[in-house]
Amino acid sequence: MLIHVYHGPNLNRLEQRDAHHYGAVDLKTINHKLRGLAAQLEVDIETRQTNREGELIDWIQQEDKDGLLLNAAAYTHTSVGLRDAIELVDYPVVEVHLSNIYAREEFRHHSLISPVCLGQISGFGAASYLLGLQAVVDHLSA
Amino acid sequence: MLIHVYHGPNLNRLEQRDAHHYGAVDLKTINHKLRGLAAQLEVDIETRQTNREGELIDWIQQEDKDGLLLNAAAYTHTSVGLRDAIELVDYPVVEVHLSNIYAREEFRHHSLISPVCLGQISGFGAASYLLGLQAVVDHLSA
Amino acid sequence: MLIHVYHGPNLNRLEQRDAHHYGAVDLKTINHKLRGLAAQLEVDIETRQTNREGELIDWIQQEDKDGLLLNAAAYTHTSVGLRDAIELVDYPVVEVHLSNIYAREEFRHHSLISPVCLGQISGFGAASYLLGLQAVVDHLSA
Amino acid sequence: MLIHVYHGPNLNRLEQRDAHHYGAVDLKTINHKLRGLAAQLEVDIETRQTNREGELIDWIQQEDKDGLLLNAAAYTHTSVGLRDAIELVDYPVVEVHLSNIYAREEFRHHSLISPVCLGQISGFGAASYLLGLQAVVDHLSA
Amino acid sequence: MLIHVYHGPNLNRLEQRDAHHYGAVDLKTINHKLRGLAAQLEVDIETRQTNREGELIDWIQQEDKDGLLLNAAAYTHTSVGLRDAIELVDYPVVEVHLSNIYAREEFRHHSLISPVCLGQISGFGAASYLLGLQAVVDHLSA
Amino acid sequence: MLIHVYHGPNLNRLEQRDAHHYGAVDLKTINHKLRGLAAQLEVDIETRQTNREGELIDWIQQEDKDGLLLNAAAYTHTSVGLRDAIELVDYPVVEVHLSNIYAREEFRHHSLISPVCLGQISGFGAASYLLGLQAVVDHLSA
Amino acid sequence: MLIHVYHGPNLNRLEQRDAHHYGAVDLKTINHKLRGLAAQLEVDIETRQTNREGELIDWIQQEDKDGLLLNAAAYTHTSVGLRDAIELVDYPVVEVHLSNIYAREEFRHHSLISPVCLGQISGFGAASYLLGLQAVVDHLSA
Amino acid sequence: MLIHVYHGPNLNRLEQRDAHHYGAVDLKTINHKLRGLAAQLEVDIETRQTNREGELIDWIQQEDKDGLLLNAAAYTHTSVGLRDAIELVDYPVVEVHLSNIYAREEFRHHSLISPVCLGQISGFGAASYLLGLQAVVDHLSA
Amino acid sequence: MLIHVYHGPNLNRLEQRDAHHYGAVDLKTINHKLRGLAAQLEVDIETRQTNREGELIDWIQQEDKDGLLLNAAAYTHTSVGLRDAIELVDYPVVEVHLSNIYAREEFRHHSLISPVCLGQISGFGAASYLLGLQAVVDHLSA
Amino acid sequence: MLIHVYHGPNLNRLEQRDAHHYGAVDLKTINHKLRGLAAQLEVDIETRQTNREGELIDWIQQEDKDGLLLNAAAYTHTSVGLRDAIELVDYPVVEVHLSNIYAREEFRHHSLISPVCLGQISGFGAASYLLGLQAVVDHLSA
Amino acid sequence: MLIHVYHGPNLNRLEQRDAHHYGAVDLKTINHKLRGLAAQLEVDIETRQTNREGELIDWIQQEDKDGLLLNAAAYTHTSVGLRDAIELVDYPVVEVHLSNIYAREEFRHHSLISPVCLGQISGFGAASYLLGLQAVVDHLSA
Amino acid sequence: MLIHVYHGPNLNRLEQRDAHHYGAVDLKTINHKLRGLAAQLEVDIETRQTNREGELIDWIQQEDKDGLLLNAAAYTHTSVGLRDAIELVDYPVVEVHLSNIYAREEFRHHSLISPVCLGQISGFGAASYLLGLQAVVDHLSA
Repeated sequence: MLIHVYHGPNLNRLEQRDAHHYGAVDLKTINHKLRGLAAQLEVDIETRQTNREGELIDWIQQEDKDGLLLNAAAYTHTSVGLRDAIELVDYPVVEVHLSNIYAREEFRHHSLISPVCLGQISGFGAASYLLGLQAVVDHLSA
Repeated sequence: MLIHVYHGPNLNRLEQRDAHHYGAVDLKTINHKLRGLAAQLEVDIETRQTNREGELIDWIQQEDKDGLLLNAAAYTHTSVGLRDAIELVDYPVVEVHLSNIYAREEFRHHSLISPVCLGQISGFGAASYLLGLQAVVDHLSA
Repeated sequence: MLIHVYHGPNLNRLEQRDAHHYGAVDLKTINHKLRGLAAQLEVDIETRQTNREGELIDWIQQEDKDGLLLNAAAYTHTSVGLRDAIELVDYPVVEVHLSNIYAREEFRHHSLISPVCLGQISGFGAASYLLGLQAVVDHLSA
Repeated sequence: MLIHVYHGPNLNRLEQRDAHHYGAVDLKTINHKLRGLAAQLEVDIETRQTNREGELIDWIQQEDKDGLLLNAAAYTHTSVGLRDAIELVDYPVVEVHLSNIYAREEFRHHSLISPVCLGQISGFGAASYLLGLQAVVDHLSA
Repeated sequence: MLIHVYHGPNLNRLEQRDAHHYGAVDLKTINHKLRGLAAQLEVDIETRQTNREGELIDWIQQEDKDGLLLNAAAYTHTSVGLRDAIELVDYPVVEVHLSNIYAREEFRHHSLISPVCLGQISGFGAASYLLGLQAVVDHLSA
Repeated sequence: MLIHVYHGPNLNRLEQRDAHHYGAVDLKTINHKLRGLAAQLEVDIETRQTNREGELIDWIQQEDKDGLLLNAAAYTHTSVGLRDAIELVDYPVVEVHLSNIYAREEFRHHSLISPVCLGQISGFGAASYLLGLQAVVDHLSA
Repeated sequence: MLIHVYHGPNLNRLEQRDAHHYGAVDLKTINHKLRGLAAQLEVDIETRQTNREGELIDWIQQEDKDGLLLNAAAYTHTSVGLRDAIELVDYPVVEVHLSNIYAREEFRHHSLISPVCLGQISGFGAASYLLGLQAVVDHLSA
Repeated sequence: MLIHVYHGPNLNRLEQRDAHHYGAVDLKTINHKLRGLAAQLEVDIETRQTNREGELIDWIQQEDKDGLLLNAAAYTHTSVGLRDAIELVDYPVVEVHLSNIYAREEFRHHSLISPVCLGQISGFGAASYLLGLQAVVDHLSA
Repeated sequence: MLIHVYHGPNLNRLEQRDAHHYGAVDLKTINHKLRGLAAQLEVDIETRQTNREGELIDWIQQEDKDGLLLNAAAYTHTSVGLRDAIELVDYPVVEVHLSNIYAREEFRHHSLISPVCLGQISGFGAASYLLGLQAVVDHLSA
Repeated sequence: MLIHVYHGPNLNRLEQRDAHHYGAVDLKTINHKLRGLAAQLEVDIETRQTNREGELIDWIQQEDKDGLLLNAAAYTHTSVGLRDAIELVDYPVVEVHLSNIYAREEFRHHSLISPVCLGQISGFGAASYLLGLQAVVDHLSA
Repeated sequence: MLIHVYHGPNLNRLEQRDAHHYGAVDLKTINHKLRGLAAQLEVDIETRQTNREGELIDWIQQEDKDGLLLNAAAYTHTSVGLRDAIELVDYPVVEVHLSNIYAREEFRHHSLISPVCLGQISGFGAASYLLGLQAVVDHLSA
Repeated sequence: MLIHVYHGPNLNRLEQRDAHHYGAVDLKTINHKLRGLAAQLEVDIETRQTNREGELIDWIQQEDKDGLLLNAAAYTHTSVGLRDAIELVDYPVVEVHLSNIYAREEFRHHSLISPVCLGQISGFGAASYLLGLQAVVDHLSA
């Protein structure tokens, strides 16, 4: 079982972002934790990051994985293209957010991709990803 | 460590609700699975259900637990009282939903309690609760 | 055939309310007229009143009747919980209002429960209930 | 006692419309049922249909009847002219709808004529008309 | 110089309308007063009334007059067709209203035809028409 | 009979404003024409201009006139204070505008004072004032 | 194969309308071009124009054609009745507009009939009709 | 003279709430201060607290007092039922709030009960209650 | 201790305003009552009235008092300038209104100054001022 | 004459998308049909696809073609950049959509690029492109 | 070359305002810096401050200067009168703000005067004025 | 001191854009003028242009400069990603626009990046950039 994890725009500079919203965490650490849990769950994992909307669409379109953990970051709120890409693939997509997007600016309260994802996990910091990996693996194993 | 789980209005008749939104599941089964995971995580658990907003507020106000899993169901979208209750307690509250509330009617897209909860997990059916229990225990253990 | 009739909040003090909106009528008289029509239609009838949203939900969830006449009063406009309860039961629910809610304050123009009821009758004073009883009995006899 | 019944636009082709919203029913059948109930209630009845807003206004303006059953169909949602016509006559007007307009497209949720009608009956299919006739006759007999 | 005066829907039953909004006045009296002023101003005048939107459009399209006084009544607020007709003719159109439409229901506050008329006169009862006739004659004489 | 005419902000520089909206006209000419018509109608007239909202309120509050012609200009759209002042006096106030405010920017479409004025005349350039004077004198003579 | 073409309100005076929006074209020319293309495509064609909403509804309801080209003009934006009529017939309806309605006033941006038409063609002037005829014939031939 | 004081949801845990909004105060202290002022004003007083909307409605409906001080807390913003209850009783109701609700989250800016209360006092912390008691006693003594 | 009381626009003509909203009261009487209470509370008081927004701003900016009672009347709803002035001074400002502004026109429901005032008292007629004086003196004495 | 055809995001996976919205069609087939029609119309054609907003802007900016057929897909609803690019080029752009975007989710009803395109063709599946090619060639040949 | 600088309401008490929004600066210092830069640019400068909307309008109307630097402060967001005054003068007006108005309360995000000013400079504290003076001088010298 | 200048989408074709909005200017000239001013101010400067949102984010994330001048063009109004990138870097960003965005289409009135920039300069054509360079250098030198 192969799970992809895509980190959207600005997550490559996570350590610079406001600790209040994201906790003191960097992407390297998150990926390391994810690989640890993947090993424990006996699944393969691949992590990627991009700041480009189009590149995210390209990656999502590929049916080269069994499931996807997606933190679309800023594109969560503005990208109809991501939504369309998720809608056309057959594998499950789990939406994750480090912060509780409902406790932040109003323009972050609305997710264009939620209605086409399997489910959403937000607000637990790095743990959002770990719960998401658990969720997608459980779903595929059911 | 004692975790409470509160099921809000109409969840006592879950088996009657639309399988499309909730999957073929009943509350007894969910509680049973939760107890299984709790045993595995070595935490105590107590589950309750009520259709009353005021009763939920009463329960939340009690500082007799270390954390709470809350599926406020319909009150998620209408109860300022629940929000105020969650805001005044010190223990962490994790918001869970069986269905993906963002893929349903517009009046279910807005949660009044999200901004004051630790995080939100929605859309995984019964698994939303299990992930939520994991999340709150991880948080308390951190 | 057993029909329940539930009167929502403040209808127990109907005689005190503005005669312009409700006519000079009290709940006792309405219930008396309903029992008269029920006898004539040869159906059993049970009437209840409560000011509690949660109690209304409890009552609606019970599949102990063949049909329901519901005047949810103030909860018509604010209760997602009532809507969910009506949606999960199998018997028909007819929404009735004494006054024409569309000729009153704007916040009374929107009914959360209309989309899940069989139909709506409003504006005929006590006669709204009698027409509603006729409607539900006709529907069940068809 | 003479009651008029006006069917608005497209109701002359009722049998072609979506059975889900209107049931398998045609206007001839509805008129036939109405005449049957009228005979039983010992009132005279006259039924008309038109697709023209202006013609409906002309008809409503005539004080040649004791009461009116009006299914304004599409004009319910767009005609200030119908509203003005109803407001200036002295006889009671009962608004009827075959379908539950609150369970359909958003632009059908708002009725411009409700605030100036005696009351509204919607969602019971052909029975909406029969209940409406009962309602207007009861009102005139009171 | 020939001026037309068109009275829109329900103005033929003006005497039945709420005296508070329109004053105790009927269309015959208004037309009589208009003819008196027209004689005094030495212009020809023709008055018409219809409840039909399409008929109003037909009449407006005719370039058989030097100016128009238009009380579109209910169609003021809903007819894009009237607006388009006024926009394509070359003669001046003066919008008149008996009542102050800004002191009534919100849906009467917006006029679709104002932006394409020469000017608007509202709130003076029958005098609105007389001022309007004066205005259009002054405009044509300038 | 004494009629006051108040010109609001920026009307003292009328000749500088866009000829498209106001025609080639200055305040002196308007006042001159008003005095001519007043003489003809055998009424006294007093004209004033100010750029100050408070000064307009002061002037309106004085019951030293039989009627008022008010072009509140920019304050039409923003001043609750003017509205309150007009509401508390007993003499009739006629609202006039040189341009058709409904054919301009959206923020000029809404008049806060219309609901408390006798009537409104807009779009006829300088003639709006003359029609307004006629209107208020006719009203007072009726 | 018989195709009808209906021109809505004010299209009979097309040559008077703003050349910027519609190009220098009249209805006679459009109908002539349509007949030319129909001959070429070997289909029968019938063209009609009316300013009346009700008449358009009457015409649409008739199942006397294989397809319809409809330029509902002003009624595009206001008529629920047209929408209902289109929804109940079985033949395909193609919505055409001379001008690009999305480049004009905001109230022209929304079409009530688009969701129930086969497709929409707008902005090509007279060519919109020719493309529409091609579209409906292609669709029927497929 | 008997005055009731009702504290709504979560006010029983006041001491836990954010000191910024409510000051360092608990319900016991407020009730104690109220009894002190009542003694001084020579009126009787009874204080109650509940988290239940329905219970508040039950209490308000009772005509067993001369006036009421109501801090409806969260229900201020969501309960049509409270509003209806207040509207049907004859005694005066004074709305009080510890915090300035207009300086907090937007959903707290709107009070459903203000329009049917005698008046509102907000923002003075515990002193809001004391001023409210003074206000209702003054009103009843006038 | 010196308390200022500022009455905003049109309050100088209070006796002319609608008795329904303000009670039969004039400014002289209110000031007289305020001086009486001030004497009793042993504080100095100074009362002023103006119809000018700018003058109110000038007065508020002066740090020549210990507290302020402000009835900004119409400017309550439109003046960002007043809000800015209140925000920059150090002494407490209490907002008072004679009428219950939430029971009146919608544009009076929103106060721009509430968020920067200590608290608000509305709906008690002249007593609003007396309660306000009590409130500010209590606050300063605390 | 050279016509470019640009397919926006996710159209490269067209065959995976919901057959209800797009018909059973893939991009290869559409391009093949377009080349067939181009040959018949004796014009050159070049087709491209990208998921990148910036790449679409780059392509559009090039004045290396006589006309463009653009299906911007998801970017239709979110890209001001595409709009700006279309606005600055001199050749005609025709907007095409496979599905009727007005019969889908609300966020697809609004096109940012319509106002700057020559015209729009939507709802005819693959035929939308063929009609569009016809339209742009006709336009360039006129 | 003579440049005027007008400071709007509350800027005379700048030193009292929140240092977070405006920096630790007073008006005297700003004016001093402006005079320094003016000397350097070899232009004359005159600075004024007022809290009165009407006075600002009076000043702006005077064509006694070559250009204007305007910090309208609170009136930026509410004054149609200022906008009208700016629109009628021929000299360039540069809008300046000390703070970044888009990072503050929502009611400060909209400027009524921006559309009629040459340009806007905001967020640089006292430097906004200096940049503005540079901008207007550069513009006049071009 | 090194300042970067980023030109967003379509600015590479500036000379083609509407001279009314941007003046007769091309990017080469702007960059030339910027280099001239940079030399004068003794700072280093680097200018870049891209049509890609993701590339702008990449560039902004680099802490390889002391300050940034950003004309995000179309992305100003739609990109949450740009906003997030600006928020996470430590150097100051000045937002510049050639045209007065508040005098153009409504969708250009809102800037997503303003709240996280140091300040904004708009409407001065090429001079906006020069003022912006001055602003950022002054800020860094302070």
